[in-house]
Amino acid sequence: MNRLQERIVQDGVVLSPTVLKVDAFLNHQVDPELVMDIGAAMAAPHRDAGVTKVLTVEASGIPLAMATALALGGIPFVYAKKKRAITQGDAVWTAPAYSFTRQESYHVSLSKAYLGSEDVVLMVDDILAEGSALTALTEIVHQAGARVVGAVVAVEKRFQSGREKLAQMGVQVRALAGIESMSANGITFAQDDESRTPEVMLP
Amino acid sequence: MNRLQERIVQDGVVLSPTVLKVDAFLNHQVDPELVMDIGAAMAAPHRDAGVTKVLTVEASGIPLAMATALALGGIPFVYAKKKRAITQGDAVWTAPAYSFTRQESYHVSLSKAYLGSEDVVLMVDDILAEGSALTALTEIVHQAGARVVGAVVAVEKRFQSGREKLAQMGVQVRALAGIESMSANGITFAQDDESRTPEVMLP
Repeated sequence: MNRLQERIVQDGVVLSPTVLKVDAFLNHQVDPELVMDIGAAMAAPHRDAGVTKVLTVEASGIPLAMATALALGGIPFVYAKKKRAITQGDAVWTAPAYSFTRQESYHVSLSKAYLGSEDVVLMVDDILAEGSALTALTEIVHQAGARVVGAVVAVEKRFQSGREKLAQMGVQVRALAGIESMSANGITFAQDDESRTPEVMLP
Repeated sequence: MNRLQERIVQDGVVLSPTVLKVDAFLNHQVDPELVMDIGAAMAAPHRDAGVTKVLTVEASGIPLAMATALALGGIPFVYAKKKRAITQGDAVWTAPAYSFTRQESYHVSLSKAYLGSEDVVLMVDDILAEGSALTALTEIVHQAGARVVGAVVAVEKRFQSGREKLAQMGVQVRALAGIESMSANGITFAQDDESRTPEVMLP
Protein backbone atom coordinates (compact mmCIF):
# COMPACT_ATOMS: atom_id res chain seq x y z
CA MET A 1 0.00 0.00 0.00
CA ASN A 2 1.13 3.55 -0.64
CA ARG A 3 0.86 6.32 1.93
CA LEU A 4 -2.58 7.47 0.73
CA GLN A 5 -3.97 3.93 0.88
CA GLU A 6 -2.54 3.49 4.38
CA ARG A 7 -4.15 6.75 5.46
CA ILE A 8 -7.51 5.66 4.02
CA VAL A 9 -7.30 2.43 6.00
CA GLN A 10 -6.27 4.34 9.13
CA ASP A 11 -8.59 7.38 9.02
CA GLY A 12 -11.22 6.71 6.35
CA VAL A 13 -14.71 5.69 7.40
CA VAL A 14 -16.97 3.53 5.24
CA LEU A 15 -20.39 5.10 5.80
CA SER A 16 -22.26 2.85 3.37
CA PRO A 17 -21.36 0.45 0.53
CA THR A 18 -20.88 3.52 -1.72
CA VAL A 19 -19.87 6.38 0.62
CA LEU A 20 -16.33 6.68 1.94
CA LYS A 21 -15.62 9.51 4.36
CA VAL A 22 -12.08 10.86 4.00
CA ASP A 23 -12.75 14.27 5.49
CA ALA A 24 -10.23 13.80 8.32
CA PHE A 25 -7.32 14.33 5.91
CA LEU A 26 -8.47 15.02 2.34
CA ASN A 27 -11.63 17.07 1.87
CA HIS A 28 -12.64 18.98 4.99
CA GLN A 29 -9.69 18.78 7.34
CA VAL A 30 -6.64 18.43 5.09
CA ASP A 31 -3.12 17.11 5.74
CA PRO A 32 -1.12 19.47 3.51
CA GLU A 33 2.03 17.33 3.40
CA LEU A 34 0.09 14.26 2.34
CA VAL A 35 -1.51 16.41 -0.36
CA MET A 36 1.89 17.61 -1.57
CA ASP A 37 3.01 13.97 -1.89
CA ILE A 38 -0.19 13.12 -3.77
CA GLY A 39 0.39 16.09 -6.09
CA ALA A 40 3.92 14.89 -6.87
CA ALA A 41 2.54 11.44 -7.72
CA MET A 42 -0.26 12.94 -9.82
CA ALA A 43 2.21 15.04 -11.79
CA ALA A 44 4.99 12.47 -12.23
CA PRO A 45 3.92 10.72 -15.48
CA HIS A 46 3.00 14.05 -17.10
CA ARG A 47 6.21 16.02 -16.50
CA ASP A 48 7.18 16.00 -20.18
CA ALA A 49 3.69 16.25 -21.66
CA GLY A 50 3.75 20.03 -22.06
CA VAL A 51 0.86 20.52 -19.64
CA THR A 52 -0.05 24.21 -19.45
CA LYS A 53 -2.85 24.06 -16.89
CA VAL A 54 -4.15 21.83 -14.13
CA LEU A 55 -7.94 21.85 -13.98
CA THR A 56 -10.28 20.92 -11.17
CA VAL A 57 -13.71 21.75 -9.75
CA GLU A 58 -14.16 23.60 -6.45
CA ALA A 59 -13.83 22.91 -3.60
CA SER A 60 -12.27 19.58 -2.68
CA GLY A 61 -10.13 19.32 -5.81
CA ILE A 62 -8.33 22.58 -5.06
CA PRO A 63 -5.59 21.37 -2.67
CA LEU A 64 -4.69 18.53 -5.05
CA ALA A 65 -4.70 20.84 -8.08
CA MET A 66 -2.35 23.21 -6.29
CA ALA A 67 0.05 20.44 -5.27
CA THR A 68 0.01 19.00 -8.80
CA ALA A 69 0.57 22.41 -10.42
CA LEU A 70 3.55 23.03 -8.10
CA ALA A 71 4.98 19.61 -8.98
CA LEU A 72 4.64 20.49 -12.69
CA GLY A 73 6.93 23.46 -12.15
CA GLY A 74 4.47 26.05 -10.89
CA ILE A 75 2.11 26.16 -13.86
CA PRO A 76 -1.29 27.77 -13.18
CA PHE A 77 -4.26 25.78 -12.00
CA VAL A 78 -7.87 26.73 -12.60
CA TYR A 79 -10.85 25.62 -10.56
CA ALA A 80 -14.25 25.58 -12.20
CA LYS A 81 -16.96 27.16 -10.06
CA LYS A 82 -20.23 25.63 -9.00
CA LYS A 83 -21.89 29.03 -8.80
CA ARG A 84 -21.04 31.92 -11.01
CA ALA A 85 -19.47 34.91 -9.23
CA ILE A 86 -20.32 38.44 -10.37
CA THR A 87 -16.64 38.94 -11.16
CA GLN A 88 -16.83 36.22 -13.82
CA GLY A 89 -19.03 38.07 -16.28
CA ASP A 90 -20.73 36.28 -19.17
CA ALA A 91 -17.74 34.89 -21.02
CA VAL A 92 -17.76 31.43 -19.45
CA TRP A 93 -17.62 27.81 -20.54
CA THR A 94 -20.32 25.91 -18.69
CA ALA A 95 -21.65 22.35 -18.33
CA PRO A 96 -24.27 20.64 -16.14
CA ALA A 97 -23.30 18.32 -13.28
CA TYR A 98 -24.91 16.49 -10.37
CA SER A 99 -23.53 16.07 -6.88
CA PHE A 100 -24.42 12.78 -5.18
CA THR A 101 -22.97 13.89 -1.83
CA ARG A 102 -24.97 17.13 -1.92
CA GLN A 103 -27.91 15.69 -3.82
CA GLU A 104 -28.31 18.60 -6.19
CA SER A 105 -27.88 19.61 -9.80
CA TYR A 106 -25.57 22.49 -10.58
CA HIS A 107 -23.63 24.07 -13.42
CA VAL A 108 -19.87 24.08 -13.53
CA SER A 109 -18.46 27.26 -15.06
CA LEU A 110 -15.03 28.46 -16.08
CA SER A 111 -14.09 31.85 -17.50
CA LYS A 112 -13.10 31.66 -21.15
CA ALA A 113 -10.09 33.85 -20.41
CA TYR A 114 -8.44 30.99 -18.52
CA LEU A 115 -8.89 28.08 -20.94
CA GLY A 116 -8.40 28.11 -24.68
CA SER A 117 -7.40 25.98 -27.68
CA GLU A 118 -3.71 26.49 -26.93
CA ASP A 119 -4.00 24.72 -23.58
CA VAL A 120 -2.84 21.23 -22.65
CA VAL A 121 -4.76 20.14 -19.60
CA LEU A 122 -4.38 17.65 -16.76
CA MET A 123 -7.62 17.25 -14.79
CA VAL A 124 -7.46 16.31 -11.12
CA ASP A 125 -9.98 15.64 -8.38
CA ASP A 126 -10.15 14.08 -4.95
CA ILE A 127 -12.68 11.30 -5.56
CA LEU A 128 -14.01 9.61 -8.68
CA ALA A 129 -17.39 7.94 -8.21
CA GLU A 130 -20.05 8.44 -10.87
CA GLY A 131 -17.79 10.94 -12.61
CA SER A 132 -20.18 13.87 -12.75
CA ALA A 133 -17.66 16.61 -11.94
CA LEU A 134 -14.94 15.29 -14.27
CA THR A 135 -17.30 14.63 -17.19
CA ALA A 136 -18.59 18.22 -16.84
CA LEU A 137 -15.00 19.45 -16.77
CA THR A 138 -14.24 17.38 -19.88
CA GLU A 139 -17.19 18.97 -21.66
CA ILE A 140 -15.78 22.39 -20.80
CA VAL A 141 -12.34 21.42 -22.07
CA HIS A 142 -13.92 20.25 -25.33
CA GLN A 143 -15.87 23.51 -25.63
CA ALA A 144 -12.62 25.41 -25.22
CA GLY A 145 -10.90 23.26 -27.85
CA ALA A 146 -8.13 22.41 -25.39
CA ARG A 147 -6.30 19.07 -25.27
CA VAL A 148 -6.56 16.71 -22.28
CA VAL A 149 -3.60 14.51 -21.35
CA GLY A 150 -5.69 12.65 -18.77
CA ALA A 151 -7.46 12.75 -15.45
CA VAL A 152 -5.98 11.73 -12.13
CA VAL A 153 -7.80 11.27 -8.87
CA ALA A 154 -6.71 10.48 -5.34
CA VAL A 155 -9.46 7.94 -4.67
CA GLU A 156 -11.48 6.01 -7.23
CA LYS A 157 -14.44 3.85 -6.38
CA ARG A 158 -13.98 1.28 -9.13
CA PHE A 159 -17.43 -0.20 -8.65
CA GLN A 160 -19.05 3.05 -9.81
CA SER A 161 -19.25 4.30 -13.37
CA GLY A 162 -16.93 7.34 -13.50
CA ARG A 163 -14.00 5.66 -15.25
CA GLU A 164 -16.24 4.21 -17.94
CA LYS A 165 -18.00 7.52 -18.63
CA LEU A 166 -14.68 9.32 -18.97
CA ALA A 167 -13.30 6.59 -21.26
CA GLN A 168 -16.33 7.13 -23.51
CA MET A 169 -15.28 10.79 -23.73
CA GLY A 170 -11.73 9.77 -24.60
CA VAL A 171 -10.21 10.54 -21.20
CA GLN A 172 -7.91 8.08 -19.46
CA VAL A 173 -8.07 8.00 -15.67
CA ARG A 174 -5.34 7.22 -13.16
CA ALA A 175 -6.10 6.72 -9.46
CA LEU A 176 -3.67 6.65 -6.58
CA ALA A 177 -6.06 4.54 -4.53
CA GLY A 178 -8.51 2.49 -6.55
CA ILE A 179 -11.09 0.81 -4.37
CA GLU A 180 -12.57 -2.47 -5.64
CA SER A 181 -14.97 -2.90 -2.76
CA MET A 182 -15.52 -1.60 0.73
CA SER A 183 -17.61 -2.34 3.81
CA ALA A 184 -17.41 -1.84 7.55
CA ASN A 185 -15.11 -4.88 7.55
CA GLY A 186 -12.48 -3.39 5.31
CA ILE A 187 -11.40 -1.91 2.00
CA THR A 188 -10.01 -3.85 -0.95
CA PHE A 189 -7.72 -1.82 -3.20
CA ALA A 190 -7.41 -2.62 -6.89
CA GLN A 191 -4.33 -4.73 -7.59
CA ASP A 192 -3.68 -2.99 -10.89
CA ASP A 193 -3.73 0.40 -9.26
CA GLU A 194 -1.25 2.65 -11.04
CA SER A 195 -0.02 3.98 -7.74
CA ARG A 196 1.78 0.67 -7.39
CA THR A 197 4.11 1.42 -10.29
CA PRO A 198 7.33 3.19 -9.25
CA GLU A 199 6.71 6.36 -11.26
CA VAL A 200 3.67 7.35 -9.25
CA MET A 201 4.54 5.65 -5.97
CA LEU A 202 3.96 7.84 -2.97
CA PRO A 203 6.77 8.06 -0.41
CA MET B 1 5.25 47.21 -3.19
CA ASN B 2 5.50 43.52 -2.44
CA ARG B 3 5.03 40.82 -5.06
CA LEU B 4 1.30 40.44 -4.38
CA GLN B 5 0.72 44.20 -4.68
CA GLU B 6 2.69 44.26 -7.93
CA ARG B 7 0.60 41.40 -9.27
CA ILE B 8 -2.62 43.19 -8.31
CA VAL B 9 -1.46 46.27 -10.19
CA GLN B 10 -0.43 44.15 -13.18
CA ASP B 11 -3.32 41.66 -13.45
CA GLY B 12 -6.10 42.91 -11.18
CA VAL B 13 -9.12 44.60 -12.70
CA VAL B 14 -11.16 47.23 -10.85
CA LEU B 15 -14.72 46.41 -11.93
CA SER B 16 -16.39 49.05 -9.76
CA PRO B 17 -15.43 51.23 -6.77
CA THR B 18 -15.93 48.17 -4.53
CA VAL B 19 -15.23 45.14 -6.74
CA LEU B 20 -11.67 44.07 -7.54
CA LYS B 21 -11.24 41.13 -9.89
CA VAL B 22 -8.15 39.06 -9.04
CA ASP B 23 -9.28 35.83 -10.66
CA ALA B 24 -6.35 35.74 -13.08
CA PHE B 25 -3.99 34.65 -10.30
CA LEU B 26 -5.76 34.27 -6.93
CA ASN B 27 -9.32 32.92 -6.94
CA HIS B 28 -10.22 31.21 -10.21
CA GLN B 29 -7.01 30.77 -12.12
CA VAL B 30 -4.30 30.51 -9.45
CA ASP B 31 -0.53 31.07 -9.55
CA PRO B 32 0.61 28.36 -7.11
CA GLU B 33 4.08 29.79 -6.51
CA LEU B 34 2.69 33.22 -5.68
CA VAL B 35 0.30 31.49 -3.28
CA MET B 36 3.19 29.63 -1.61
CA ASP B 37 4.96 32.96 -1.08
CA ILE B 38 1.79 34.48 0.33
CA GLY B 39 1.39 31.50 2.67
CA ALA B 40 4.94 31.95 3.96
CA ALA B 41 4.22 35.62 4.66
CA MET B 42 0.89 34.78 6.30
CA ALA B 43 2.55 32.24 8.58
CA ALA B 44 5.71 34.17 9.47
CA PRO B 45 4.58 36.17 12.54
CA HIS B 46 2.76 33.11 13.97
CA ARG B 47 5.52 30.52 13.82
CA ASP B 48 5.96 30.41 17.59
CA ALA B 49 2.31 30.91 18.56
CA GLY B 50 1.53 27.20 18.89
CA VAL B 51 -1.03 27.29 16.08
CA THR B 52 -2.65 23.85 15.71
CA LYS B 53 -4.95 24.55 12.77
CA VAL B 54 -5.35 26.96 9.89
CA LEU B 55 -9.01 27.71 9.19
CA THR B 56 -10.68 29.08 6.08
CA VAL B 57 -13.96 28.96 4.17
CA GLU B 58 -14.32 27.19 0.83
CA ALA B 59 -13.43 27.73 -1.94
CA SER B 60 -11.10 30.66 -2.57
CA GLY B 61 -9.43 30.52 0.84
CA ILE B 62 -8.25 26.93 0.31
CA PRO B 63 -5.01 27.52 -1.65
CA LEU B 64 -3.89 30.15 0.87
CA ALA B 65 -4.81 27.94 3.83
CA MET B 66 -2.79 25.11 2.36
CA ALA B 67 0.27 27.30 1.74
CA THR B 68 0.03 28.77 5.25
CA ALA B 69 -0.37 25.34 6.88
CA LEU B 70 2.70 24.08 5.01
CA ALA B 71 4.68 27.13 6.15
CA LEU B 72 3.64 26.42 9.74
CA GLY B 73 5.31 23.02 9.51
CA GLY B 74 2.59 20.98 7.86
CA ILE B 75 -0.16 21.40 10.45
CA PRO B 76 -3.69 20.53 9.26
CA PHE B 77 -5.99 23.09 7.71
CA VAL B 78 -9.76 22.92 7.77
CA TYR B 79 -12.12 24.59 5.33
CA ALA B 80 -15.63 25.36 6.46
CA LYS B 81 -18.26 24.34 3.93
CA LYS B 82 -20.97 26.49 2.44
CA LYS B 83 -23.26 23.53 1.96
CA ARG B 84 -23.34 20.57 4.23
CA ALA B 85 -22.20 17.28 2.63
CA ILE B 86 -23.91 14.03 3.59
CA THR B 87 -20.56 12.78 4.89
CA GLN B 88 -20.57 15.54 7.53
CA GLY B 89 -23.44 14.21 9.62
CA ASP B 90 -25.12 16.34 12.25
CA ALA B 91 -22.22 17.13 14.54
CA VAL B 92 -21.30 20.50 13.03
CA TRP B 93 -20.54 24.01 14.20
CA THR B 94 -22.50 26.41 12.00
CA ALA B 95 -23.00 30.17 11.52
CA PRO B 96 -24.86 32.34 8.99
CA ALA B 97 -23.03 34.35 6.34
CA TYR B 98 -23.78 36.42 3.26
CA SER B 99 -21.86 36.50 0.00
CA PHE B 100 -21.81 39.87 -1.75
CA THR B 101 -20.15 38.44 -4.89
CA ARG B 102 -22.76 35.69 -5.13
CA GLN B 103 -25.57 37.75 -3.64
CA GLU B 104 -26.91 35.02 -1.42
CA SER B 105 -27.24 33.99 2.23
CA TYR B 106 -25.71 30.72 3.29
CA HIS B 107 -24.58 28.80 6.35
CA VAL B 108 -20.96 28.01 6.99
CA SER B 109 -20.47 24.63 8.68
CA LEU B 110 -17.54 22.76 10.13
CA SER B 111 -17.55 19.26 11.64
CA LYS B 112 -17.07 19.31 15.40
CA ALA B 113 -14.50 16.53 15.07
CA TYR B 114 -12.05 18.96 13.46
CA LEU B 115 -12.22 21.93 15.84
CA GLY B 116 -12.28 21.86 19.63
CA SER B 117 -11.32 23.77 22.76
CA GLU B 118 -7.74 22.49 22.54
CA ASP B 119 -7.17 24.23 19.20
CA VAL B 120 -5.19 27.40 18.51
CA VAL B 121 -6.39 28.83 15.22
CA LEU B 122 -5.08 31.13 12.51
CA MET B 123 -7.86 32.18 10.11
CA VAL B 124 -6.98 32.98 6.50
CA ASP B 125 -8.88 34.13 3.44
CA ASP B 126 -8.23 35.63 0.05
CA ILE B 127 -10.18 38.89 0.33
CA LEU B 128 -11.55 40.87 3.26
CA ALA B 129 -14.41 43.20 2.32
CA GLU B 130 -17.49 43.30 4.57
CA GLY B 131 -16.06 40.41 6.58
CA SER B 132 -19.00 38.06 6.32
CA ALA B 133 -17.03 34.84 5.85
CA LEU B 134 -14.46 35.59 8.56
CA THR B 135 -17.02 36.77 11.13
CA ALA B 136 -18.97 33.54 10.54
CA LEU B 137 -15.74 31.58 10.97
CA THR B 138 -15.02 33.50 14.19
CA GLU B 139 -18.45 32.57 15.51
CA ILE B 140 -17.68 28.93 14.80
CA VAL B 141 -14.33 29.19 16.58
CA HIS B 142 -16.10 30.70 19.59
CA GLN B 143 -18.70 27.92 19.55
CA ALA B 144 -15.89 25.37 19.59
CA GLY B 145 -14.14 27.18 22.46
CA ALA B 146 -10.93 27.37 20.44
CA ARG B 147 -8.46 30.27 20.64
CA VAL B 148 -7.77 32.60 17.67
CA VAL B 149 -4.33 34.12 17.22
CA GLY B 150 -5.59 36.33 14.39
CA ALA B 151 -6.85 36.54 10.84
CA VAL B 152 -4.72 37.19 7.80
CA VAL B 153 -5.93 37.96 4.31
CA ALA B 154 -4.19 38.45 0.98
CA VAL B 155 -6.23 41.49 -0.04
CA GLU B 156 -8.14 43.84 2.24
CA LYS B 157 -10.44 46.55 1.00
CA ARG B 158 -9.85 49.01 3.83
CA PHE B 159 -12.82 51.17 2.88
CA GLN B 160 -15.23 48.36 3.76
CA SER B 161 -16.19 47.23 7.24
CA GLY B 162 -14.62 43.77 7.64
CA ARG B 163 -11.67 44.82 9.83
CA GLU B 164 -13.93 46.77 12.19
CA LYS B 165 -16.42 43.90 12.57
CA LEU B 166 -13.63 41.45 13.34
CA ALA B 167 -12.06 43.85 15.86
CA GLN B 168 -15.42 44.01 17.65
CA MET B 169 -15.21 40.22 17.95
CA GLY B 170 -11.68 40.48 19.34
CA VAL B 171 -9.88 39.36 16.18
CA GLN B 172 -6.89 41.26 14.83
CA VAL B 173 -6.48 41.32 11.05
CA ARG B 174 -3.34 41.47 8.96
CA ALA B 175 -3.42 42.06 5.21
CA LEU B 176 -0.62 41.57 2.70
CA ALA B 177 -2.20 44.09 0.36
CA GLY B 178 -4.44 46.65 2.05
CA ILE B 179 -6.27 48.80 -0.45
CA GLU B 180 -7.19 52.34 0.64
CA SER B 181 -9.00 53.21 -2.55
CA MET B 182 -9.32 52.01 -6.11
CA SER B 183 -10.74 53.12 -9.44
CA ALA B 184 -10.12 52.52 -13.12
CA ASN B 185 -7.26 55.02 -12.74
CA GLY B 186 -5.35 53.04 -10.18
CA ILE B 187 -5.09 51.43 -6.77
CA THR B 188 -3.77 53.08 -3.61
CA PHE B 189 -2.28 50.67 -1.09
CA ALA B 190 -2.36 51.42 2.63
CA GLN B 191 0.94 52.88 3.81
CA ASP B 192 0.71 51.11 7.16
CA ASP B 193 0.21 47.79 5.50
CA GLU B 194 1.90 45.09 7.55
CA SER B 195 3.26 43.50 4.44
CA ARG B 196 5.77 46.35 4.43
CA THR B 197 7.45 45.15 7.61
CA PRO B 198 10.34 42.75 6.99
CA GLU B 199 8.80 39.79 8.81
CA VAL B 200 5.93 39.45 6.39
CA MET B 201 7.58 40.90 3.29
CA LEU B 202 6.99 38.84 0.20
CA PRO B 203 10.03 38.05 -1.96
